[in-house]
Amino acid sequence: MSGSTLIAIDWGTTSARAYRMDARGAVRDERSAPLGITQISSGRYDQALETLLGEWTSDRAPRLACGMIGSRQGWIEAPYVACPASLDALVGGITTVRESDLSIVPGLITRDRFGTPDVMRGEETQIAGAVASDEARVLAVLPGTHSKWACVERGVVVDFNTYMTGELYGVLLSHSILGRMSAATPEGDSGAAFLRGVDRGLAADGITHAIFGARTLVLAGEMTGSEVGDWLSGVLIGAEIRAALAWAREEFTGTARVRIIGDDHLAARYENALARAGVATDMADRHAAARGLWRIATQAGLLH
Amino acid sequence: MSGSTLIAIDWGTTSARAYRMDARGAVRDERSAPLGITQISSGRYDQALETLLGEWTSDRAPRLACGMIGSRQGWIEAPYVACPASLDALVGGITTVRESDLSIVPGLITRDRFGTPDVMRGEETQIAGAVASDEARVLAVLPGTHSKWACVERGVVVDFNTYMTGELYGVLLSHSILGRMSAATPEGDSGAAFLRGVDRGLAADGITHAIFGARTLVLAGEMTGSEVGDWLSGVLIGAEIRAALAWAREEFTGTARVRIIGDDHLAARYENALARAGVATDMADRHAAARGLWRIATQAGLLH
Repeated sequence: MSGSTLIAIDWGTTSARAYRMDARGAVRDERSAPLGITQISSGRYDQALETLLGEWTSDRAPRLACGMIGSRQGWIEAPYVACPASLDALVGGITTVRESDLSIVPGLITRDRFGTPDVMRGEETQIAGAVASDEARVLAVLPGTHSKWACVERGVVVDFNTYMTGELYGVLLSHSILGRMSAATPEGDSGAAFLRGVDRGLAADGITHAIFGARTLVLAGEMTGSEVGDWLSGVLIGAEIRAALAWAREEFTGTARVRIIGDDHLAARYENALARAGVATDMADRHAAARGLWRIATQAGLLH
Repeated sequence: MSGSTLIAIDWGTTSARAYRMDARGAVRDERSAPLGITQISSGRYDQALETLLGEWTSDRAPRLACGMIGSRQGWIEAPYVACPASLDALVGGITTVRESDLSIVPGLITRDRFGTPDVMRGEETQIAGAVASDEARVLAVLPGTHSKWACVERGVVVDFNTYMTGELYGVLLSHSILGRMSAATPEGDSGAAFLRGVDRGLAADGITHAIFGARTLVLAGEMTGSEVGDWLSGVLIGAEIRAALAWAREEFTGTARVRIIGDDHLAARYENALARAGVATDMADRHAAARGLWRIATQAGLLH
């Protein structure tokens, strides 16, 4: 049980994942549990942490967590840090649950050009793990239910922007007339329908009109019901990329390579869609959250 | 029972409404039933028509219907007529159910600049009832689950465009995280939150980002849960108006007054939002569908 330098915990809304990391910042082992903050009753976070860590509970390595566990609805609030936010600013916002020796990384807050606040919790840590402090300029995307795009300059998160792409896709397919147009699809997906949707999403704003095409194309016999899901995913991701690139052009004086942070099927979709948009991309290494926690812990002097 | 010139029927997806009209085209009486085409089992449209008409069944006046009853899923298909579509083109597409002496007005089809088809059924008849043939140029909006905007020149529907605004609002409020931010609201609504949303929707495209503000504004204490619904409605309607006006500028060489076809709470919202956008509006008279059916019936020579 000895030898680990950090227990890093990515603790979100629906699940939690813990990593034991060695002195070089490599992940040596991981555990997970369906113990996100919405799954924990009566505020028994201490019990949840013990369940998540299991036999690691006796490990004396420092513990650092990120994600919704630090929100107002979580264990203890680690108030949002404002952008532009350096690694030191994140370190300065670390909040500690004394009774469990658990430190929590704060989230970030910014305001868009209309003055509307935008927030992230957990993604700031993944960014810290996926973008090195000596990289001059990176545009990072974290695909998901609420996709985040962040402009990062020499390790500082200058600004970011949230898109509800994944959630829109889900509610439209499950609860709207577009889902009723969609035939049950076998697992494999239609790359052609997806790219057709991406082209449509990239071409123009106004998804409220564009997505109605899922209905009319099927009615007109120009798309099959089994293609609706992939096409709709393409339209929404294409529209997100179009909007995010326009936003990034305002933030950056020049262009930037896009780093995709994620290692699932969805990340591959963004890679294909960004290629379609003619944008150069690279994929972050795995375990971005764990790497970020290790980097923040190091900067904070938490490591023994 | 005598004296009526036309029995006009607006027969949609969820309900049906019948009007007895006199020789001057005025509505003398109306009946309705929850007998839209999705409510009718085993194709018993004849029984549904008898239930809807009740004692009017013995009225020998000609019967003309519009709406989803003429769709492929309806009683008999009245194939879509392509835009630009004149009143004569609509008349040419009328299809008749012989056994019930029921004539049905066709819907319209167009393609947007991406080649994607767009369709309407029922709205073409409301437009015929709400826009006179000697009006040079009208931009008509029919607010609803799937809002329609139509460019009408001297009675010809030049082109139209659908926006899934109402359905998006419904699924987001019922099934997304934004709905969970929304407190149960007492009936009266917040005009201020609505207009604040309209301003945001009018200001820029990219609703996938904008709507996330319903979450962050509440989190930041800058909006109350009871304002979420009205704000979201404003953002979506504002974004629709922005997109539709841009589209109409491409269709028309000049500007146009906007005619709002609808007589409910939603129509009033569009009136307020369009005023906010600085656009002149007027409201169509009531019974646009009945008036349109009467006009089409007259043009078709159906009236005795």
